[in-house]
Amino acid sequence: MAGKKVLIVYAHQEPRSFNGSLKRVAVEELNRQGCAVTVSDLYAMDFEPRATRKDIAGVLCNPDFFRYGVEAYEACKKRSLTSDIIDEQKKVQEADLVIFQFPLYWFSVPAILKGWMDRVLCQGFAFDVPGFYDSGFLKDKLALLSLTTGGMAEMYTKTGVSGDFRYFLWPLQHGTLHFCGFKILAPQISFAPEIASEEERKEMVASWAQRLKTIWKEEPILLHLHLPPLFQLTHHQILFHVCLSFHLNLHPLRASLIRRSLRAIVFKF
Amino acid sequence: MAGKKVLIVYAHQEPRSFNGSLKRVAVEELNRQGCAVTVSDLYAMDFEPRATRKDIAGVLCNPDFFRYGVEAYEACKKRSLTSDIIDEQKKVQEADLVIFQFPLYWFSVPAILKGWMDRVLCQGFAFDVPGFYDSGFLKDKLALLSLTTGGMAEMYTKTGVSGDFRYFLWPLQHGTLHFCGFKILAPQISFAPEIASEEERKEMVASWAQRLKTIWKEEPILLHLHLPPLFQLTHHQILFHVCLSFHLNLHPLRASLIRRSLRAIVFKF
Repeated sequence: MAGKKVLIVYAHQEPRSFNGSLKRVAVEELNRQGCAVTVSDLYAMDFEPRATRKDIAGVLCNPDFFRYGVEAYEACKKRSLTSDIIDEQKKVQEADLVIFQFPLYWFSVPAILKGWMDRVLCQGFAFDVPGFYDSGFLKDKLALLSLTTGGMAEMYTKTGVSGDFRYFLWPLQHGTLHFCGFKILAPQISFAPEIASEEERKEMVASWAQRLKTIWKEEPILLHLHLPPLFQLTHHQILFHVCLSFHLNLHPLRASLIRRSLRAIVFKF
Repeated sequence: MAGKKVLIVYAHQEPRSFNGSLKRVAVEELNRQGCAVTVSDLYAMDFEPRATRKDIAGVLCNPDFFRYGVEAYEACKKRSLTSDIIDEQKKVQEADLVIFQFPLYWFSVPAILKGWMDRVLCQGFAFDVPGFYDSGFLKDKLALLSLTTGGMAEMYTKTGVSGDFRYFLWPLQHGTLHFCGFKILAPQISFAPEIASEEERKEMVASWAQRLKTIWKEEPILLHLHLPPLFQLTHHQILFHVCLSFHLNLHPLRASLIRRSLRAIVFKF
């Protein structure tokens, strides 16, 4: 949508990779819409992932007992964080939507992107206490994880060896992004591009570009922590509450089936 | 236990920190038992977290299209990974037990430790395809996460704002360590030491030291992916199967209560 600002935080070493293609078509499609797109290409920037005292440009509160969180919080308030962190924070601050583009490493983001989260989303910038989850400082922004996996889709199901993909998304979508207030758009997961055919890879890239055409009309997914006891449920009309500890983006039919099933569930352990 | 080898992968910037104390008492107690203890002090080592082509000491298979996973796998087979990775792999290879000591950063490990996982636990060393999960290459070893949190224990419960702590452990315990074959000992979680009293902190450190006295008698926790349908459950005598997608270390009483509750559950959605 014309006028919107998008930050793509991109973590892949190879421009010609599948992740590189997903990043490229996103930039193209969003530019076509008139969005202002900024890309943080973390490997190209040789982005520092380690959270150390080098992140504090000014004087430390307590140089004899270094507490990273405390020092970063104070430095944030005094505008004395190191410049690479401030640069990224400015990009986040200006963005309406932040897209994270990465290959899944160990059920999570690559360390270089984890370091971006550890260092950029510091207390005082992204949240405070109080001032987290729904009142996190980035609550007027959208976030979207676009990731590729090594494993096939069927491995990331409830009965698959790796469990439902929503499980590994929890620390990222809830524990990190939602904690900072972000509204979360449904993840874009491209399963196993390395073992897909060239045609299938092209389809995955095309479907991402296609989705982006209407991205500004999407509603955030709802993140829920627990299945409420049955008595609560019967007083709720909100179907999404059925999700046990995870965020679902339910099809209405599926939600209706679940609602019916739940009437028979005694759930308390 | 005399003769056992332990690797502690330690990720805190400050030796005088609470994490530093937990690391120190672990070294002391395990030494007292006659174990050989090695510590990888990641910040002190300025350990590299970024997975880049610098990790390949030899010639790349395809310098024009860099695939980290493929190149690391081939380099591992040819013994041409960079020396800091090989050094860590040797330490893991020799260890009977690997303890990870870290403060929770964004529901996960700090980036410097994520980088250790990304780079050290490469294909060919820690797993292969096939050769993962129960047949992962590190299947004769134990792993244990010892971590501190910022939030209080009640935040990390099913009804707490951050959800059950087992949810954020999933990508680490199942997706990473179990994938490599490790048997997982119950996590040691020290909740919110920063807001605890000095006495409470001492108690937490002491209870960790106390636990380590009998650590070699502990049974690994069982990791389960899904709640089997009811008909399966009734044929099972194994109580641990009640866990929905997560690993539990259940008290027998709790397990018994759950077994009884489950008789009433219709679970299929």
